[in-house]
Amino acid sequence: MKKENIGIVETQVFNLPHELELENGEKLRDVQLAYETYGKLNPEKSNAILICHALTGDAHAAGLHKGDSKSGWWDIMIGPGKTIDTDRYFVICSNVLGGCKGSTGPSSINPETGKQYGADFPFITVADMVKAQKELVDHFGIQKLFAVIGGSMGGVQVLQWSVTYPDYVTKAIAIATTARSSPQQIAFNEVARIAILSDPKWNNGDYYSGSAPTHGLALARMIGHITYLSDASMHQKFGRKLQNKEQYDYNLGFDFEVESYLHYQGQSFTKRFDANSYLYITKALDYFDLSRKESLIEGMKTAKAKFLIVAVSSDWLYPPYQSREIVSALSANELDVTYREIESNYGHDAFLLESGQLGYLIGNFLSHTIVSDVMRNDIVSIRQGISIEETARVMFEKGITHLPVVTENDELTGIVTSWDISKAVALKCKTLDGIMTKDVLTVKGNEDIETAAKKMEQNNISALPVVDDDNKIIGIIGSEEINRLIGGYR
Amino acid sequence: MKKENIGIVETQVFNLPHELELENGEKLRDVQLAYETYGKLNPEKSNAILICHALTGDAHAAGLHKGDSKSGWWDIMIGPGKTIDTDRYFVICSNVLGGCKGSTGPSSINPETGKQYGADFPFITVADMVKAQKELVDHFGIQKLFAVIGGSMGGVQVLQWSVTYPDYVTKAIAIATTARSSPQQIAFNEVARIAILSDPKWNNGDYYSGSAPTHGLALARMIGHITYLSDASMHQKFGRKLQNKEQYDYNLGFDFEVESYLHYQGQSFTKRFDANSYLYITKALDYFDLSRKESLIEGMKTAKAKFLIVAVSSDWLYPPYQSREIVSALSANELDVTYREIESNYGHDAFLLESGQLGYLIGNFLSHTIVSDVMRNDIVSIRQGISIEETARVMFEKGITHLPVVTENDELTGIVTSWDISKAVALKCKTLDGIMTKDVLTVKGNEDIETAAKKMEQNNISALPVVDDDNKIIGIIGSEEINRLIGGYR
Repeated sequence: MKKENIGIVETQVFNLPHELELENGEKLRDVQLAYETYGKLNPEKSNAILICHALTGDAHAAGLHKGDSKSGWWDIMIGPGKTIDTDRYFVICSNVLGGCKGSTGPSSINPETGKQYGADFPFITVADMVKAQKELVDHFGIQKLFAVIGGSMGGVQVLQWSVTYPDYVTKAIAIATTARSSPQQIAFNEVARIAILSDPKWNNGDYYSGSAPTHGLALARMIGHITYLSDASMHQKFGRKLQNKEQYDYNLGFDFEVESYLHYQGQSFTKRFDANSYLYITKALDYFDLSRKESLIEGMKTAKAKFLIVAVSSDWLYPPYQSREIVSALSANELDVTYREIESNYGHDAFLLESGQLGYLIGNFLSHTIVSDVMRNDIVSIRQGISIEETARVMFEKGITHLPVVTENDELTGIVTSWDISKAVALKCKTLDGIMTKDVLTVKGNEDIETAAKKMEQNNISALPVVDDDNKIIGIIGSEEINRLIGGYR
Repeated sequence: MKKENIGIVETQVFNLPHELELENGEKLRDVQLAYETYGKLNPEKSNAILICHALTGDAHAAGLHKGDSKSGWWDIMIGPGKTIDTDRYFVICSNVLGGCKGSTGPSSINPETGKQYGADFPFITVADMVKAQKELVDHFGIQKLFAVIGGSMGGVQVLQWSVTYPDYVTKAIAIATTARSSPQQIAFNEVARIAILSDPKWNNGDYYSGSAPTHGLALARMIGHITYLSDASMHQKFGRKLQNKEQYDYNLGFDFEVESYLHYQGQSFTKRFDANSYLYITKALDYFDLSRKESLIEGMKTAKAKFLIVAVSSDWLYPPYQSREIVSALSANELDVTYREIESNYGHDAFLLESGQLGYLIGNFLSHTIVSDVMRNDIVSIRQGISIEETARVMFEKGITHLPVVTENDELTGIVTSWDISKAVALKCKTLDGIMTKDVLTVKGNEDIETAAKKMEQNNISALPVVDDDNKIIGIIGSEEINRLIGGYR
């Protein structure tokens, strides 16, 4: 399949309909989230994928903004024909609460004062970020996300989603991440914060009318940047190469390329990020800990999704042992979890760069979809023996054309369609029994969706009841929603 | 053997007799080095061990300063009966050039201006530090150090010593170190420097009359401190324990113990270290690269010492692969090198803490001493056939009592002592041949010093000629110097 760029995209703004109650007890009014979407939500709203961004990411995950030549931060993964195929999936990415790229954060106007929040912004948590995202997902009327995907702090949000809103997540993909911040991660965040707080221009967070603490923020970014690379990738990228010179300068300027590179990264970061957001978001990361009573098994008990957990061999900031810890906790809860460690020299940054390995893993994980992953389970059925009039009323009220008929024990015994009702009226038939289809085609929840699609196509029907081993109905699946997911819908 | 503390020690000052020409071409006048010594230099000056300190260390390696309750930084290793046994060895430790603990550095008075150097201090290198130390060693009249030992930046100096002054180093012990700073090491040094340079109080290095850039220096130390610990040791030491509280504060203060610990480390560091020294010494480390034309084998070609290279399993700042790189280069140069990786969770700091494992390795390495390690090779001998008068004159002039007699081919054929001369005078004997001992006891250079000591003791003689396989004399070894090294001299 040809991989294409999505083309021009635009960031939208969603205004939360009510105030947001935060984990620390405070309330935030007039919260907005910046978001982008790619692809088309199917009528069943079953093909939505939420992408969660990392510490300094934003809603612009893919495509181009008008007049801009730089693609979104995960453009290598998202687009028509790409791993996260926008011809199949409806992709949503929103800037986190506390951020500075369009979502409510410390640089937003505080409705109480009419001035930027600054250090008056309440301290948020990852659970708060996810709670705000959940409002956005609700706004689309999506009752279940086909997948939630993210790396680093994005992965942290994925895990939080799976634990807090277990019924909303079918598949969860968490890359290069952790279920609780380690003391080393906290330590690096703290020195980055101290860099900002020590800059006199930080001015207790009140700098929006003057000049920003760019020195401190640049330094924070430089520290962070070292932790995103691996020792090996730095050897490869820089070695001991000097910066445009043949010999040492013997002064306090840059001698080495690696120094100049870090400065450049630090400097350019200050043009796109707000220092207060850096403080608040790193604090949220530090607070992140899914364990309950020191037990991650206990803390992840509520999760229901299927998980793909991916670690990076050379990632020393979010080392593989943290991913394996997640896998252990999920396995102990008897969840379906796949663990992969990708071989890469890129260090933590691999989640943004290793499109080949990640594409293969994520692509496989998304496409291996079974019926129960996508079936609707808000099924309406009728009991055997009720009247044609009653049946017609249910159909009309619920707006559906296929109605499963069940026994007293909820066993599927037939199916009745609006066509059958017309037939009954024409033939003056009074009971269901005479007109319903009794030899009903069904699928099992654990059948592959491709098998289900084939059944529907071959028999020229548009929906199949999903039954368990006792022939009890547990859901219904339509051809349209399946076809989109298997790529037959373009 | 009972391990004791050395007791009260005092830092001395050595004034370099002439100006020091630095690697960058500049010259430094009136250079002084602060140093301490422990134990007693033997008459042969063959039992001296130089200890090199790490980035923020000083000359106070062991014992106590009067009125102080804190021992020197390597007191666990140095003292009577300890691994570096001050009953056997004469231990020297000096504060590095560029430092701030008594040696000439940026906080010293510039004799040209009468004011502190500050940022006018010339940029020094590790080779410069070692060059200054060499002056101190010369000052003691030591022509060969029994060992040079150091960890981290101390190890870097050990390697520099072995390459620059190969004839001065018998044994070299380099722990948790590298032969060239990696881009990641440079990067961490650079962010630490930026922390200092960004502090407005740094004031271009001119802060000695005002207040020092303590914020910047504390931050630099905090960053450094994270790199000295391992992820595992931080889990062990702190985990996610909160600092004197039951729940998160939801503010920008410390929530976690690890944060409070780092702050404390940063703060207390500013009381004992000069920010400019931190800048200069980290730059010297960045410049450190023993390779020549990108080849470490080429760069370490001149070395002659026996090496013990020790790495720490959990050290990610100076990872074991850097130690193995040193070992490869030394082996390729056919040098005698022993490599050990100690198992420790302490990270880089293990070189200061793992006294058990390090003590065992260093103790073994120091005690496995062969005759050629400690023999004098400034031997005086006389040719077979010369007169008694001539022999007596040589003895008198050189102030020695044992004179080896050699053939034209330098083969050892006898030994003559002052006692033999007296005998010849009494017996009116005119030639050596009649009175010299012909059946001379000798040792080989590769024999263990304990064997040599036994030979001398059993035969009641005080010195042995050292010969090669062709019976040619290559040195002489005395019982006194040996006895001290094997611990028989107290």
